[in-house]
Amino acid sequence: MRVKTYAFGVDIGGTTIKMGLFHTDGKLLDKWEIKTRTEENGTYILQDIADSVKDKMKEQNIRIEDVEGIGMGVPGPVDASGTVLKCVNLGWGVFNVVSRISELLGGIRACAGNDANVAALGEMWQGGGAGHENMVMVTLGTGVGGGIIINGKIVAGANGAAGEIGHFQMKKDEPAACGCGKHGCLEQYASANGIARMGRLKLEQESRDTVLKGKEPLTAKDIFDGAKAGDEVALELVEELGEMLGTALSYIACVTDPEIFVVGGGVSKAGAIVTDTIQKYFRKYAFHASADTPFALAQLGNDAGIYGSVKMVL
Amino acid sequence: MRVKTYAFGVDIGGTTIKMGLFHTDGKLLDKWEIKTRTEENGTYILQDIADSVKDKMKEQNIRIEDVEGIGMGVPGPVDASGTVLKCVNLGWGVFNVVSRISELLGGIRACAGNDANVAALGEMWQGGGAGHENMVMVTLGTGVGGGIIINGKIVAGANGAAGEIGHFQMKKDEPAACGCGKHGCLEQYASANGIARMGRLKLEQESRDTVLKGKEPLTAKDIFDGAKAGDEVALELVEELGEMLGTALSYIACVTDPEIFVVGGGVSKAGAIVTDTIQKYFRKYAFHASADTPFALAQLGNDAGIYGSVKMVL
Repeated sequence: MRVKTYAFGVDIGGTTIKMGLFHTDGKLLDKWEIKTRTEENGTYILQDIADSVKDKMKEQNIRIEDVEGIGMGVPGPVDASGTVLKCVNLGWGVFNVVSRISELLGGIRACAGNDANVAALGEMWQGGGAGHENMVMVTLGTGVGGGIIINGKIVAGANGAAGEIGHFQMKKDEPAACGCGKHGCLEQYASANGIARMGRLKLEQESRDTVLKGKEPLTAKDIFDGAKAGDEVALELVEELGEMLGTALSYIACVTDPEIFVVGGGVSKAGAIVTDTIQKYFRKYAFHASADTPFALAQLGNDAGIYGSVKMVL
Repeated sequence: MRVKTYAFGVDIGGTTIKMGLFHTDGKLLDKWEIKTRTEENGTYILQDIADSVKDKMKEQNIRIEDVEGIGMGVPGPVDASGTVLKCVNLGWGVFNVVSRISELLGGIRACAGNDANVAALGEMWQGGGAGHENMVMVTLGTGVGGGIIINGKIVAGANGAAGEIGHFQMKKDEPAACGCGKHGCLEQYASANGIARMGRLKLEQESRDTVLKGKEPLTAKDIFDGAKAGDEVALELVEELGEMLGTALSYIACVTDPEIFVVGGGVSKAGAIVTDTIQKYFRKYAFHASADTPFALAQLGNDAGIYGSVKMVL
């Protein structure tokens, strides 16, 4: 069997498409970005990707028979056959992206997955979860997402909703609504926006002096910075966040009992304070057999998607 | 390749060992039980199983080369290699049951799994989850257990604790302790004992007339019978149970998003009232993409373990 040398990893976002050329041994050789053309229901997106791949192959003198395949992360649910079920951000309806990109690239092997899941796969492969085949990635960004990896493979779920941990229903008496329409979702407390929201609510009835007062708009970063500087109110907010996330992650451990939790997303840039505080409460609420599950910070940043995408075809 | 005709499924319990002879097409040909000899740290258990298998083979004129293998469900955590980590009920410490039973049966192929997980596999194969490869089984018995099946395989977990859904921490202000040492575990409200406990607590401060008064000891069955007869207090207890379980199962759906939930264990004998009430609250709390996940009652009863055990070797 002849071993092929190259593979492409593609991370399709609503604004830009991140592209990576990899050696099949896993080394990232080159990365670049193209614009996401969402006009006309995103009809040009796959053609643009195919053209960009072909240009790169020409530039690097790569023949089609040297390419193992192309993997793509897509911002929405994708089923096992590669059919996207609706990517609102791209304007896409329901069609098979795998067969389409394969066709555009002369029959090349293709795979596709949900972007959050694909990023988790990337972190498992060469990031914070390296060395583990059973991992859960928790992404604390604009929203709260999760990627569940079992035996080295992404769990997609019957409805593409595996890993939607941002929608754990954590509070039954929450008056504010989540973007999903429910009330009391984890995301309402633990996303970057949720952390800032909880900060604002606390400040409204706070009489103590705090560095958070006057920050306009108050951000999650302000709260972590305040906590690191020893501000009492900020520290309480971080504890409350840790308790909420520690509880939620203890649920995940009761379901799949992963080898490790990897925490990524913008909020994780605050560093060890995030993982340490979550872990403190996780240990308190987790079933005893899982209580020592380690926590790590994500390492690949914005490249997690191209790493995970290419991993699907390797 | 010669196709082998027979396989054995064994479900090791603390009191009896259930044994099944199967055709490799999945048909149960014969089933019987032997006593579990727990004396001397359960040292005779595997020998007794091997002897019983050999007797059955002799009786049925089955040669060793006609046997595909033997699968065993064990009441405790088992890792992927077949090492049991401690089966308190059997007196077992840490050793490899797979290599041991294989040795005792002339090198026959063997597999082992945790009994709750194995029962889930049985229900997936020929019970309430038939036709589905991604399933979660919820067992409401003396305790609350779960079996997570992804792509037709049991998820065991890094610490053998996958599916320990009875230890979801549902209430932070619970004064009573769970058997695990924590406070507020799902099992404290939704197991047969937990349901009865909640009933007793409610009756202590109940002024309404109810059929539950005077039942001593009050059981989960009394509560379901009362609810079916329209008793207001019993109906409220069933609703509270449904809300607790519906919430917990909505968490599972946010993690693995199964195709179906199968509900088994003694409590499920109350029938559709159990699944209907859980499902009502599940639909309320689940992420919208998973809200229509179907619920089914388990079908194999006490045979689920031998079905699931044999499935591991087929």
